[in-house]
Amino acid sequence: MPESHVTRRNALRRELRAADLDALFVIDLRNIRYLTGFTGSNAVLVVAAADEPGHESQTVLCTDGRYLTQSAQQVPELERIIDRGSDSALIARMSADLAAGKGGYRRTGYESHHVTVDQLDLLTESGPGIDLVRAPDLVERLRLVKDETEVHALRMACGAADQALDDLIAVGGLRAGRTERDVARDLEGRMLDHGAAAVAFESIVAFGANSAIPHHRPTDAELRSGDLIKLDFGALVEGYHSDMTRTLVLGEPADWQREIYDLVALSQAAGRAALAPGTDVRDVDAAARKVIEDAGYGDQFLHGLGHGVGLEIHEAPALSKTGDGRLSAGMAVTVEPGVYLAGRGGVRIEDTLVVRAAAPELLTLTTKELVVV
Amino acid sequence: MPESHVTRRNALRRELRAADLDALFVIDLRNIRYLTGFTGSNAVLVVAAADEPGHESQTVLCTDGRYLTQSAQQVPELERIIDRGSDSALIARMSADLAAGKGGYRRTGYESHHVTVDQLDLLTESGPGIDLVRAPDLVERLRLVKDETEVHALRMACGAADQALDDLIAVGGLRAGRTERDVARDLEGRMLDHGAAAVAFESIVAFGANSAIPHHRPTDAELRSGDLIKLDFGALVEGYHSDMTRTLVLGEPADWQREIYDLVALSQAAGRAALAPGTDVRDVDAAARKVIEDAGYGDQFLHGLGHGVGLEIHEAPALSKTGDGRLSAGMAVTVEPGVYLAGRGGVRIEDTLVVRAAAPELLTLTTKELVVV
Repeated sequence: MPESHVTRRNALRRELRAADLDALFVIDLRNIRYLTGFTGSNAVLVVAAADEPGHESQTVLCTDGRYLTQSAQQVPELERIIDRGSDSALIARMSADLAAGKGGYRRTGYESHHVTVDQLDLLTESGPGIDLVRAPDLVERLRLVKDETEVHALRMACGAADQALDDLIAVGGLRAGRTERDVARDLEGRMLDHGAAAVAFESIVAFGANSAIPHHRPTDAELRSGDLIKLDFGALVEGYHSDMTRTLVLGEPADWQREIYDLVALSQAAGRAALAPGTDVRDVDAAARKVIEDAGYGDQFLHGLGHGVGLEIHEAPALSKTGDGRLSAGMAVTVEPGVYLAGRGGVRIEDTLVVRAAAPELLTLTTKELVVV
Repeated sequence: MPESHVTRRNALRRELRAADLDALFVIDLRNIRYLTGFTGSNAVLVVAAADEPGHESQTVLCTDGRYLTQSAQQVPELERIIDRGSDSALIARMSADLAAGKGGYRRTGYESHHVTVDQLDLLTESGPGIDLVRAPDLVERLRLVKDETEVHALRMACGAADQALDDLIAVGGLRAGRTERDVARDLEGRMLDHGAAAVAFESIVAFGANSAIPHHRPTDAELRSGDLIKLDFGALVEGYHSDMTRTLVLGEPADWQREIYDLVALSQAAGRAALAPGTDVRDVDAAARKVIEDAGYGDQFLHGLGHGVGLEIHEAPALSKTGDGRLSAGMAVTVEPGVYLAGRGGVRIEDTLVVRAAAPELLTLTTKELVVV
């Protein structure tokens, strides 16, 4: 892992130099994890543009006493300051270095999309001499394209979800009389059994008419024969999130169920096929949406097609009408069209994939044939 | 519930008038839940100082289309705007009202401890004519003292944790060979069985020498005879968190184990006894700490004595050397001294309590006698 962290910090340094910044003051814990591998619940980090691999003398992590040992294990290559008031302590130290003529921090960028108004005051007071400059999204932009270490974690997370669903079906976990809550707990426990550190988000388990609610929370509703079963769930592995939706039927599917299932599957395939480097994210949404609109169900597809996924369950890029930008190889995204018939039921089919030059790499491998249980 | 929400909004209005503010723009979801009962994952709220119960014409909630139905069910008494760009949409509407001569929003406070630098820009641009004034912690200060609706939820959350541990012990869940991870999952599942909507935080389950690490994460370490077993866990009910730690022993306790157990229990009792309205929070910490210091273990009590608990697992007041302020009746706090002997084991005993005029109300009812399993 350390090697990829060094590579990422160097990529950030190139961005800093391009933005005429001497350093970036990082407070977002996901960004800190991305840049250093540190997984504690409190830290701030400064990355100096002038540092070089093996000589990162002005790139410093600050955390509190709880993480003395852990930070030394996870980030041995960087200097670590242990101080409860991490943000003010680190910037005070930077200010002192600057006053001592060491340079390196004169123009320091900060994450203006994460730093609160009050926190900026504290940083400004604690860091005399440092010119704090807005620098939103610098690390998030690097995170758009996943490296192979990240894809490996995503693959493990998707695998845990695939195996959990496979087990759940194999043991008859989707049977009449079980509640949405029961099934959610069962599925989540099985993801943990298959290596998830935690669930990636609160699972959506929706039976029958509830499946028409896009973000339904599991209730005590019982599964009955003829119900659509919508399962939207994911695993967390090494900080990375998987995201998959499958819709099944208990007993013989009705014609309307099969009709919307086949339609959503066709739309989802069109969305996947549109995933290619250089494609505008709105065009990916449009490719999948057209299939559903042409069938007359456009108003029943209530949300965007998908989103980036990684250290956050929802991150850039958004694959939607209002999205912005083009795909690049290495981006990890979901493709998840749905058709929701209020009061009757809904179908959503979702995969997590990595954009590749030739064809997208599918990470969620569970079949997309209509499974009848 | 609606009655307590109206009462809370009126308490906020008194604070707003005292601060010479026409309104408060609220973005923190816990504060929004406290003031309205809305539990969705996206919303902003403006509370107008001049509104009155039954006539809250300028107190408005804004959320997105996913929560159309839910917001109408949970907040029927307030106007609701449905818009994806919630923060800018709400402030634009406030600005338009102001331009139309309706008043009510001229000097609007905002949560400068939650609003980011970039978001303040967006609000400023989207709300011409509105004077945005820093107003940190207004709602958090109201939340310090819990009303009976809140205490009821805390009681339910603490009850779920008590019952889960009781069950776990009763079925022999703490037996040699089980891993920390197994026990954590088992305990968490049992909290869900007893009405928890979720766990309040990642459970700490630490066996043997691991119990000397204050915030240990469960591993595959197996329970062995003679081990201390430290369990720090809690349940979430109606948004409120419980927090309890118990330390047990598998098999006959060694003398050193019993010695530090009795010491921590004595310290914890002293801390609980010091919980009275008007007491300085530092004096509560000192009362418990003195017992441990007098026994020569002061350096092994590595953290503060406790913290407020409610819609957040850690909230004000901090009961610690660096805490600030005095207790009031109705505050909910933890009391959790510990002694940690590196490489050997540690003991922590923690309750959640409500400060009352006569004596504190204990919410976590599991025995604090040393349980030998």
